[in-house]
Order: sequence, then C-alpha cells, then structure tokens
Amino acid sequence: MLNEQLKAELIDRRRDLHRHPEQGFLEMRTASIVASELIRLGFEIRTGTDVMKPDAVMGKPSDEETAAHFEWAKANGADPRTVDRFKEGYTGIVADLKTGRPGSLTVFRVDMDALPITESDSDDHVPRRENFRSLNEGSMHACGHDAHTTIGLGLARLLSENAGLLSGTVRLIFQPAEEGTRGARSMAEAGVVDGADFFIATHVGTGVPHGTFLAASNGFLATSKIDVTFRGIASHAGAKPEEGCNALLAAATAAVHLHAIPRHSGGSSRVNVGELHAGSGRNVIADRAEMKIETRGQNADVNAFMKAQAERIIRGAADMYGVDVEFRTVGEAVDCQCSEGLARTLAEVAADSAFVETVVLEDNASAGSEDATYFMERVIQNGGEATYCIAGTDLAAGHHNERFDINEETMFAAVDVLFRAALRLNGDAG
Amino acid sequence: MLNEQLKAELIDRRRDLHRHPEQGFLEMRTASIVASELIRLGFEIRTGTDVMKPDAVMGKPSDEETAAHFEWAKANGADPRTVDRFKEGYTGIVADLKTGRPGSLTVFRVDMDALPITESDSDDHVPRRENFRSLNEGSMHACGHDAHTTIGLGLARLLSENAGLLSGTVRLIFQPAEEGTRGARSMAEAGVVDGADFFIATHVGTGVPHGTFLAASNGFLATSKIDVTFRGIASHAGAKPEEGCNALLAAATAAVHLHAIPRHSGGSSRVNVGELHAGSGRNVIADRAEMKIETRGQNADVNAFMKAQAERIIRGAADMYGVDVEFRTVGEAVDCQCSEGLARTLAEVAADSAFVETVVLEDNASAGSEDATYFMERVIQNGGEATYCIAGTDLAAGHHNERFDINEETMFAAVDVLFRAALRLNGDAG
Amino acid sequence: MLNEQLKAELIDRRRDLHRHPEQGFLEMRTASIVASELIRLGFEIRTGTDVMKPDAVMGKPSDEETAAHFEWAKANGADPRTVDRFKEGYTGIVADLKTGRPGSLTVFRVDMDALPITESDSDDHVPRRENFRSLNEGSMHACGHDAHTTIGLGLARLLSENAGLLSGTVRLIFQPAEEGTRGARSMAEAGVVDGADFFIATHVGTGVPHGTFLAASNGFLATSKIDVTFRGIASHAGAKPEEGCNALLAAATAAVHLHAIPRHSGGSSRVNVGELHAGSGRNVIADRAEMKIETRGQNADVNAFMKAQAERIIRGAADMYGVDVEFRTVGEAVDCQCSEGLARTLAEVAADSAFVETVVLEDNASAGSEDATYFMERVIQNGGEATYCIAGTDLAAGHHNERFDINEETMFAAVDVLFRAALRLNGDAG
Amino acid sequence: MLNEQLKAELIDRRRDLHRHPEQGFLEMRTASIVASELIRLGFEIRTGTDVMKPDAVMGKPSDEETAAHFEWAKANGADPRTVDRFKEGYTGIVADLKTGRPGSLTVFRVDMDALPITESDSDDHVPRRENFRSLNEGSMHACGHDAHTTIGLGLARLLSENAGLLSGTVRLIFQPAEEGTRGARSMAEAGVVDGADFFIATHVGTGVPHGTFLAASNGFLATSKIDVTFRGIASHAGAKPEEGCNALLAAATAAVHLHAIPRHSGGSSRVNVGELHAGSGRNVIADRAEMKIETRGQNADVNAFMKAQAERIIRGAADMYGVDVEFRTVGEAVDCQCSEGLARTLAEVAADSAFVETVVLEDNASAGSEDATYFMERVIQNGGEATYCIAGTDLAAGHHNERFDINEETMFAAVDVLFRAALRLNGDAG
Repeated sequence: MLNEQLKAELIDRRRDLHRHPEQGFLEMRTASIVASELIRLGFEIRTGTDVMKPDAVMGKPSDEETAAHFEWAKANGADPRTVDRFKEGYTGIVADLKTGRPGSLTVFRVDMDALPITESDSDDHVPRRENFRSLNEGSMHACGHDAHTTIGLGLARLLSENAGLLSGTVRLIFQPAEEGTRGARSMAEAGVVDGADFFIATHVGTGVPHGTFLAASNGFLATSKIDVTFRGIASHAGAKPEEGCNALLAAATAAVHLHAIPRHSGGSSRVNVGELHAGSGRNVIADRAEMKIETRGQNADVNAFMKAQAERIIRGAADMYGVDVEFRTVGEAVDCQCSEGLARTLAEVAADSAFVETVVLEDNASAGSEDATYFMERVIQNGGEATYCIAGTDLAAGHHNERFDINEETMFAAVDVLFRAALRLNGDAG
Repeated sequence: MLNEQLKAELIDRRRDLHRHPEQGFLEMRTASIVASELIRLGFEIRTGTDVMKPDAVMGKPSDEETAAHFEWAKANGADPRTVDRFKEGYTGIVADLKTGRPGSLTVFRVDMDALPITESDSDDHVPRRENFRSLNEGSMHACGHDAHTTIGLGLARLLSENAGLLSGTVRLIFQPAEEGTRGARSMAEAGVVDGADFFIATHVGTGVPHGTFLAASNGFLATSKIDVTFRGIASHAGAKPEEGCNALLAAATAAVHLHAIPRHSGGSSRVNVGELHAGSGRNVIADRAEMKIETRGQNADVNAFMKAQAERIIRGAADMYGVDVEFRTVGEAVDCQCSEGLARTLAEVAADSAFVETVVLEDNASAGSEDATYFMERVIQNGGEATYCIAGTDLAAGHHNERFDINEETMFAAVDVLFRAALRLNGDAG
Repeated sequence: MLNEQLKAELIDRRRDLHRHPEQGFLEMRTASIVASELIRLGFEIRTGTDVMKPDAVMGKPSDEETAAHFEWAKANGADPRTVDRFKEGYTGIVADLKTGRPGSLTVFRVDMDALPITESDSDDHVPRRENFRSLNEGSMHACGHDAHTTIGLGLARLLSENAGLLSGTVRLIFQPAEEGTRGARSMAEAGVVDGADFFIATHVGTGVPHGTFLAASNGFLATSKIDVTFRGIASHAGAKPEEGCNALLAAATAAVHLHAIPRHSGGSSRVNVGELHAGSGRNVIADRAEMKIETRGQNADVNAFMKAQAERIIRGAADMYGVDVEFRTVGEAVDCQCSEGLARTLAEVAADSAFVETVVLEDNASAGSEDATYFMERVIQNGGEATYCIAGTDLAAGHHNERFDINEETMFAAVDVLFRAALRLNGDAG
Repeated sequence: MLNEQLKAELIDRRRDLHRHPEQGFLEMRTASIVASELIRLGFEIRTGTDVMKPDAVMGKPSDEETAAHFEWAKANGADPRTVDRFKEGYTGIVADLKTGRPGSLTVFRVDMDALPITESDSDDHVPRRENFRSLNEGSMHACGHDAHTTIGLGLARLLSENAGLLSGTVRLIFQPAEEGTRGARSMAEAGVVDGADFFIATHVGTGVPHGTFLAASNGFLATSKIDVTFRGIASHAGAKPEEGCNALLAAATAAVHLHAIPRHSGGSSRVNVGELHAGSGRNVIADRAEMKIETRGQNADVNAFMKAQAERIIRGAADMYGVDVEFRTVGEAVDCQCSEGLARTLAEVAADSAFVETVVLEDNASAGSEDATYFMERVIQNGGEATYCIAGTDLAAGHHNERFDINEETMFAAVDVLFRAALRLNGDAG
C-alpha cells in the first residue's frame, strides 16, 4: 500500500515542514496545510476552540506574538483556504473518517509544534546540506514533530484510499504545543477522545533503534511547568540599601529550596529551576526576577505534592523578602500506563510490517513527560484502551539538539504499522 | 568619709554577693539583703510590681524555675524579713532618701544580676583562691554586678550618714536582669525615674583602666533580643520523608537570611543568630528548632528596621517549610546620648576624689548595649539630665569570661565619686 | 524440641537482657553472658578483634565512655569468667559448633545492642509493670535485640542438644552495634562469613504480624551515617562581627544544600540532617556546630553518589565561611537482595513449625537500612546464599518508641524455625 | 573671560557630545575631538597606553566590540587626524600646558564616558525636543560626562588664551570609563598625576542645587565591581539529574550568602548582587550562570574585607555544586578625603565667580563611589593636595535615569571657577 510515490511524497512533506517550523500555538502554516489536505481526503474536520477548551490552554504566546506569526505564516506558504481558522493560535485539528458502518472509534494522535532552537548551520547537518534547514530562524523541528505530522497525513491518505475496508470511525488528532506539555489538556477537556475505543499516540526515536517498533512506552512522569515572576522594589545599593525589596534574592532563595523539596516515598520525583533571570544593574537592588521551573512525579500524586511544595516555597521566599510573586502553570502532563491488550495488538500488526525488523512489546525506561497522557488517561477512564508507541530511528543527535535529524524511512514504518492497526481495529467491514 | 571600716565592709559585701550569684529575675537573696539594709539605713523602699510593670518585663524565667530558686535563696542566706517580697521574681527595688528639704530628685542606678557562666575553678582565679567562688554552680558574677550592688549599698550608707548635708530626694534603683537587657524597661515604664532631675548609671571596667573615671560613656546600640521556636512535624527520614515539616531547615534558612538583612544608610546595624538547636535524631525529620538571635542599631530606627526584617524573614522561612513559629522578644534596649552638663559635673567631682587619678569626660567607643538607656531616655525626654559613668578597674579577664575578676578598690572610687555627685547635686542644704 | 522449660528460660533470659540494655560497642555484660553460655554448650568461640577488624569499626564510643561502662557492666551482673574479653568494647562473638562430619557451613546472625532511649515509666508498659524495665537509665531495648540475643542462645541450646543430628559446621554470630549500622562491616571484613554456604539474619516485628514468618525481607537501602563538626572563630557580634568565622551559618548552609542534592535516575535516594546544634551565646558568633546526617540509596551506587555529594557540599559550605570541618562516617550499610533458593528453603521449614500460622516468601517494603547486608553481600559474592527473615510479632508501640514491647512467644517461633533450617541445611548426618 | 561666544560654543559642544555618547573604553569619537582641539590650543598631549597601564585597565569591552565601535566612530564624526590613536580602546588623554616658567603642577580631571541606557524619547525630554537625543541607541550621557568633557575643553581654551598669566604647568586629564570605576586606576598607575602639587576633579549635579559650588565632596565609598561566571555541566533534569553540575544553584547560593557577609566594626559596608542570569531551558540543569556584583566600604580596608569575603563565598558556593567559577574585577575605586587647604582655596575663588551664588566648603553625604579617588590618593600620598568639587545644577531627573538632563549654564560656572583656581594656583607669572 505504501508505494514509491507515497514514500517520495512523505519525504517531501516532511522536508517542507522541517523548513517551516512553528512553535506551540503558532502552528498556523502547518495546521492550514494539514486541514486542507484532510478536507481533500474526505475527512470531516473540526478546529480551534471547537476542539480546544480555551481555559485549559497553557503557556500560550501573547496576542502580539500570535498576530506577528500569523503574518509570517501567510507570507510563507500557509494554505489560504484554511489558515484563517488558526489566526488566534488555537491550532488543534480533529479529523474524522466516518465509514457509516458500525464499528469502533479509533483515535490516532500526532503533534505538530517545533522548538525554540536555532538549527545547526554545519555542513554535516543533513537539513542544511540538502537545503531544508529552518527558514524560521530560532525555531527548529528538533524533536521529530515534522515527521509526526507527515505520518499523520500519510496515514490519512491510506485510510482515505482504503475506506472501503474499514468500519466505524477513524479519528486523527493533530495536536499543537506538545513541547512544554501545553496543548493536550485543552483538547482532552474539550472531549475529543470521549467515546474512543482505542487511542494510539506515536513518536519517533527516543533512543529506540531504526527498524524496531515499540508498542508500549511506559514510564512517563507526571509534570508541571511553572513560570514565576517576582516583583520587588528597586533602590540604589550604595545609598539606600534598606529601601529595596530584593527580587533577585527572593528568586535565588526559592531556587535553592525548591531543589530541597523532600523525596517522596510514593515514587520518584524531580524538580528543576532551569532558568533564573534577575536584575537590571550592578548597583541597583533588583526589583524583578523570572524563573522557569518544572516538577515531575512518578504519578500524579507525587507531582501534585511537588507542585504544592513548590508553590509554598516560592510564596515563602517572596514573603521573606517582602516581594510580590506570580505563579503561572504553563504546562502540565499526567502519568499513564499503556493498555496491555492494545499494545499486544499493535505489536502483532507491527510484526507483519515489512518495514519493521524487531518488535518490542513494552519498555518502562522513559524519564520524560508527554501530554498525550491526558488523552490516554481519559480514554482508559472511560473504558477504552490506549497506548503510546515508538517507531525507532537513527538519530544524528539527541532530541532537542540543534543537529537533531532522523532517518526518514522511519516514517514508512510508522505509517504502515498504524494503517495495519486501523485495519485490525476497524477492519471488520462486513 | 570612706573610712577603713567601710572599705572592709564593701569588700566583704561584694565577696558575699559574688559567692551567691543569681541570674535575672531570680535575684531574691540579693534583693532581700539590699532591701533590709536600705530599710535599716532609713530609706523608703518600694519593690516588686510597684516598681516594675509586669507586661514590660522581658525574658523572665518560668514559674518553675522561679519557685525552685526561691527555695535556694531561702536556704542560702536570704534575709527572711524581706525575701517574701521577691518570691515571684519581681526583684526590682527603688529606695528614696527624702530630706524633707526642697531640692532636686537625683537617681542612682545599679544592677544586681549574674550570668549563666560556670565560674573558673583554676588556682590562679582569685575568687577560687580566696574562697568566694560561686556556690550557685552554673551562675557567676562575671560582669561586676556584685560590685555594682555593693557600690549602691555603700553609697546608701554614706547618704544616710550624711543626710543632714542633703536637700531634695536621692533615689537608688537596684535593677534586676540587666543581662539580656531585660529588666530596665519594666521599671522605666513603671515611672520610677519620672520627675528626676538627674540620673546616673554606673558600671565598672569595660576596658577603662583602674584609676580612671569616665563621666559619659556613649555609643550604646539599640538592641532587641529574640527567642524563636519553630514547630514542625516529625517523620521517618527513610520511610516517609514527604510527611515531615522540617523545623531544622526552617531555622537554618532563617539563620542564613537574617544575616542577609540589608545594611542601613541610617547608621550601623548588627544581627546575630548566636544559637541554633534543632532535631532529636539522625533519621527523624526535625520537628523542633530553637534560635537565640539579637539585632542592634546605631539608633532606635535602625534597630526597629532590623527587628521588623528579622520577623518577616523568620515567618517567611517558617512558611516555606510549613512550620509554625513563635517569635518572643526577651530583651530590648535603646540608644541614648549622655547629657553634657551632668557629665561635666560628674567629671568635676571625680577630679576631686582621692581614688581617681584620671578623669575622662566622654567616650564613644561602646559597641555593646545597655538597658539603662531606657531610664536615660525617659529622664531626658522629661527635661532632666542623665549620664552613664564608668569606674575603671583592672580585669583578670574580659567581661563574661569565666575568669573575670576586678580590682576591688574600684568600688571605693565609685562610691566616693557618686557620693560627691550627690553632695553637689543635692547639697544646698540650706 | 522446644519444651516448656526452654520457653520459660527464653522469657527469663530476654527479661534479664531487657533490664540491662547496653548500647553499641558497650554490650559487655550481654556479651559476657552470651560467651559463657556458648562455651558451656560446647561451641568454640572467638571474640573481640579476632572477629572485628578495628579500622572498619564505625561510631565507637570514646575510651572514657567505654571504660565507664565496663565498670557498670561488672557491677551489674556481667559474667566474670568472660567479661574481660570485652573490656575495650570489641564486643562481637563468633561461635562454631563443629560436628566433625563433612557438610555445609551455615551461619546465623543476631544482634545485641540497645538504643539511646529512656524507657517508658507508664503503668501500661509491660516491662515496667512486670518489673523488667531498663535499669540502665537512658538506654533501652526498643528494637527487640534483647529477643534476638535470646533467640540466638535458644538456637545454640537446641543445636548443642541435637548435635548428633548435624553435619558440617553451624556458626552463630552475635553482632554488636547494629543500631546506626556500625558493627557488621568490621566483622564481615574480619572474614567471619567467608566460606559460608548459607547465611540467615533474623529480626522480630517490623510490621509483620504475630504468627507470620517472612522468609526474605528485601528493600533495605544502602546508607551512610555521618557526624559533622564545624569549627570557626568566636567573636563579639556587636563589637567585632568581622572577626568571627561563623560555624553556625556554615552548618545551616550545609543543612539546606544537603537536602538539595539532586535526585538520582538510578534509584530512590534519601538524605536527612536530623540534628544541628550550634553556638553558645546570643551575642557571640558561633565557633562550633555539630550535625548528625544520613544518606540512603536504593543501591550502593546511589548511596555512594549521595555521600560524595554530601561531603562536597559540607566542605564547600565550610569554605564559604572560612570554617574548618570534620566529616566522620559513623555507620554504614549496603543494600542486598535475598537469595531465592535459601528463602524458599526457609519458607518450607517455617511452614512445618507449629509456632507459625502464615508463611510469606518475600516482601520488598522495607524503607530502612540494616548492616546485616554486609554479611549477605559477602556470602553471595563468594558463591553462598543469604537471606534476612522476620518473625512477626505484636508490637505495643513501633520500633524505637519508648513504649516498644513484643509478644515474647515470637521467640519460640524464631528458635523453632531457625533450628529446623539448621536441620535441613546441615542435617544429612550420615 | 567667559564671553557669549564661548558660552555658545560650550553649549554646542555639549550637545554634539550628548548626541554621540560612547561607553567606557569606546570614547573614540569623543577622544579624537578632544585630542585635536587640545593640539590646536597648544597643549602637549599623550594618549593611549602612554597614559594608561594596560594591566590595570578593568572591564574593557571585547576586541570585537572595540573594533565594531571604531567603525561607528569613524562613520559618525570622529576627527580623522587623531582617531587612530584610540583604535584599541585606550582612550585616555593627558594634555600639558607648559609655561616654561617655574611653578606648580596643577591637574584638572574630567571624564568622558556614557552609560548603557536608552535615552528617553518623550516629548518633554529636552534633548529629544531640541534634537540632540542620542544617536548611539542604547548608550546615553545620563550622568553629565558630556558636560564634563565640555568643561575640560572650555577650561583648556581659557588656559590657552591666558597662558601668559600662568607659571608652572597646568595639566588636563580626560579620563575614560569612570562608570563602573574602571578607568582611573590605569591612568594613576601610569603616573599621570605623579609630581602634581594640586589635583582637582569636577562633577556636575549629584544633588547640589544650581548656583551652588561645593569645594570638597567627601564620603565616597571604596568599591569593587566584580563579574562572576559559573560553568557547570548540563543534564536533562528528568532523565539524568545526577549528571548535572548546577551553575544556577551555585550562583543563587553565592548571591544569598554574599548579602550575609558580616557587618564590619571599622565602618559602613555594602554589597549587592545586581544581576543574575542563569540557565537555558526549563528542563535542563543549568550549565552557566553570570552575576554582576559590587562591594563597598567606608574605607579601603573595609572594602578589601568585603571583596575577600565575596571571593571566598563565591568559590565555596561553586565548590558546593562542583562548578567552575571565574571571578573578574571589572572596576574598582578607593575612598579619599579631600585636602582642606585646597578645598579652602577653591571655595575662595568660587566665591569670586559671577556664576556662583552659594559656596559650600565641604559635604560628607556621598554614598556613591568615584575612581577619581585613585588620583587623589596618589597625589596626597606624594605630598600634594587634592579635592573633588561639584558644580550644582538643576536635574530633570536623577543621575542614571533615562530622562536625565542638566541646566547647561552650570558649565559656565565650572569653567569659570576652575580657570580662577588655575590662576590662583599657577598665577604668579612673574
């Protein structure tokens, strides 16, 4: 089914997306291309706030950034037929292929956003050498979401072409803002996986070698991403030190003590203050400080503990220095365990794929976080099954590295396996 | 006037007091002896809560300690005629010699309390060698207040014997609990110096050499003495680290940040966490911590700033760790400048004394604190004059050292100069 | 085999030991009684530095404490025939029952030391009511080691009486100073389990209910117990703040940052500063601070990471304040996994005991630490098998509580099961 | 002497300089204009490393910045005859008017550099309204050094025109990089004030009202400006927290403890961490942190104590976190007391000036720092006299504010008084 022409198209698609990376809630060009293609293929699509609950959106760029990027998208190849749908930055898409025949609701989810990384300009970096390096300087597809989006569209193509073999409904979710775990919750809370029998999220790479397909990647940590702003009172450090309220010291204090949050007997935990920026001059008591922090937990309870402690520590540190503080949750994900049955099914169909050499049922090694877990948790709570699968690939450099690159043939494996899964799960087309 | 017999009595008196040191608000034996002697000499005395405002008393020992020491005092030579007056630990005495003739109200103040120091048992320590080492183990007159009390009684004797030469009223204050600056405020607020024309507080030593008399010792820092108790929740550090609320870390945090209180452009400041005791076992998250701290300031405003910041920091640190905190002011003193006129008068009469070789009018070198400043401030605010004078002495070791000892002849100088001052200030006996 | 007379003797023995608790490396009375009894029963015994490598002993009391306790032991019922062996505080005993017949070397280990806890004097505390409360005020058998020693002697009795049924060698280890994980390493490094085919350590209680026997208790954390002393320079906080080197702040800083040691991806970790004592006076910059800390890790690597970080942090904090620091390891234990085969054997014989109602093969719930792991690790590394078993009991209060007490019948179960294990492991007596 | 034409020229000159502000060691355009004018007026000039000791230069911009600014200067009106002298950024100028007659060596010093401030674009900001707002965006003369340079050139003009009235030598120093106290030390150490009989540094404003001339501004604090860079090891905060060496926490720790440096009994002190920037991503353990700090002291000893403590704390904090640290002194100044005699002379001639209404001999209120103190200290140590004078002015907003502006007539007062001083000090032209 995956013929040479489609292969070539996948590669072209991925390179076009790679050349036009867009960060979370700014995937306007990407979403317009996806939406138009899905309409062309006969999917019923819903977009924007129809599939995203606005007050569950986290870490959305400012209106100014959103408006500016919209201009960029229009000037850089956005599909004019659909791009206006995404003007406000609600860039999620849900697309249904309804067969009209009774059967399961199976949901496939991919993500679309890029990272705030300046792509390598080195000669040995393939995208540079083969001329598809990022044109959106400062943004880069350094995590493979360009491939994910391409896989989603490749799957859509095969589903559309083989709709007659299917029953029930096959749904595709193109999610914005997975980086920073910002986008999924708003879509899950909008109900886009409610009623799903099966849910499959897909990623490439993450250390799984090329030719290997992992049916169930477990071990994602629940996480919260938090931005903190301290506001104090400036004063001349020589003349009137007693008149300042030192935001820099409040932040420094919070940073140290956040790392001293107790370990938890209920599972592993993490905390990091990744960035701290404070002060505007050597001889001025700093009146402003910003921190970017994250907490993680082996399960939601542990993460909730970490987050509650973090807030207490931050407020206490601010009070110590007479400083005001704002605490904003800008990303969040839960933990989730893959459903065994669905994982086994996926492993079976993967074993049939010519693009897969090795199938692994389950791996628990993940130490990262993923907001696909919101979808998975909701599906499982409602009685469905969910899994998170990995199509292995060769990496030129690790995820989030400026020289990240993949083996593009991984996309063929992913499309093939996911399509086989759809046939199995929705294939009893009378 | 100071004949050989009186000299011998002063030495005996001082050695008896040195042998029976009593800490602040426990000077029951001392006060009973003082009170009985003053009555004998014809003074009108007031004691206890008549001269101490209870709610301005700071750092008073517990009722248990007070009751236990009362038994000790009765068993160790307290004067049975007056000791019951001091049972509750309100050990202050105000004694008036009223001449019946119009004239000034002149107040002399001495202090009576000892320190929580175990006296040296070394052969070369004079009180040990001459058999007047402390019998109240763990308490010691290591600051000369035994001499001060003796000076007060010696002065009383001369005043009484020469009452016919005097006019107006001469008042003696025997103050408890100067150590930790705990006792004076309660007496000042009870009004015991109200109406005073002149006020003279006296100390021995403090670096002034024997034979020298300093009429005005300036530079005392305003200070607050604060005890802090943190109460958290214990938990097994291996099994349930997340269930503890760590009082040790709250205290450690407060300690560090107290020292980081900003400098003040309004004058020099000080802060010290002198003691920190926390925790009860290596593998238990500490549920209790105690700190002894002090702040100082070149003036009352600076010290008020330090104290306010200290409280904010302590409360913030407690909040960071979810710990309760109690903040108790157990001592306090203000700054005060000696009155120039009175200092000059005192310098003049000192120059006439056979016991004084050198007179210094003023010195600003003090970096300590004294609660006699409460009396001084009140007298000056009411239009009177006040000074703090030093009778120099040879010290065997510094103040608050376990081998502290004085040259007893210093007492002769002090008594002589103070009596001469009384004659000058209240001497126009028609 | 466990007749009524032996039962009564076990209870008497345990109560005598309970009444005379002795802390680690001070078990002189206990060891003398054990040694004399083992000699009487025909065991070959080795003691002191023959079975303890002195430079691997950790956290041994001072010579003064050791000498003083030796006098106490002699005055309180130590066996005069053997007590001199233990005068220096090397209180370990290794006792061999050599059958002369070829067969396995099987080692049973119990511990003998008590805790620094003042035993409850409450009427409802059985040892108080039945008159076997601690006579060594401030020390208490609050972890059941009195029962362990008694179990060891009961087992010795049965082995001795039934020696004809046995082959090979059965060895008993009576270990000092398990509390604080201080004693085992010195014995393991002295080679006392070298050549062992089987090793069984035994504990009572730890949450396992009465009537239950747990054959393999897994999950002990590797641990290090560390005492830290900071030595700075005192100075008057008002007069010369700049001349002090603040040991209190160095310790407070270390305490905070020890808790901020990073989490480890290799397994769970713990750290605790359980005690901090610093300073000698409110107005003195503290020249001395003491901390008691511990680190733990799910495995030895994680604990080694924690300990190395702890040392780095402590030295850095001392350097920040210009303070000297001494870092003493006063206890240490490793992690260890029980051998499955031996655990299964033990479970089988336990199932045959009339004193056992329920047998559990394995439990991983421990969050504590145990230095028997040194023996276990060494036995397994040398090709033998090892396990750590628990005889369940009813606890009046948790371990290390002042009202801790056990159901004494638990000792019968332990002696019976261990004897059955010896018969199975060393029972092929021709 | 100060006629209308010269007044107009002064205003034009100042506005030209204001429009072309150049930061420390980049004053290439400014210096070229100054140098060419001084040559024209008959001064012998020395520049660059002839008058600046390179290894005493602090906080010099990178070679890249220096080269880039040189291009800017050439493109924006630098004088081509002299600008090459300043290409490397050694922008100091020493200019001598040698009369050939015996007499004093009198030195006048002004500074030339601007601040890293973006000038106000508000309509009510005079430089904006009258069209002399900064053309070098991000740099601004917000401290009046444009006026100082103008005053120096105005004085040069009058000296040149009246050379016949003078004896001895009058020397002008045009100093770079006073902001951050970076430039003076290198010139002082190059010996440019050696042999001086009199030294006068001049500033406008600083709170002194227009029409007032202050002859001696005392109270400058000794200071050190220090840049600190921490370099650790990055690691993924979720996956491998134990592999990071956290530069952010090292910096945060240093920041807190720097503020806890003890107070000093030898005089007032200050410390400030004005800026802290650390980390590059929320989920990455920060491998880099930068801090800008400063210390101050009432005298050089106190500041030396502060700086030594700061270095110790910073190195200790780095060691705690296993992080490398670089500690760079980028600015420094000493304290200095003005010479009474010279101040009195200056006050006398100021009283004669038609541009001065009020003369103040001395003021001690400064709580800032100035590196002219290096010149002053050296002159006084060598037996000369030195003072630091202020020409009062009306300020539109405080120094270092984006809306700072002066009353330009202040320049007339300064030029007039300084010229009168030269006449008095070097005026006995036989």
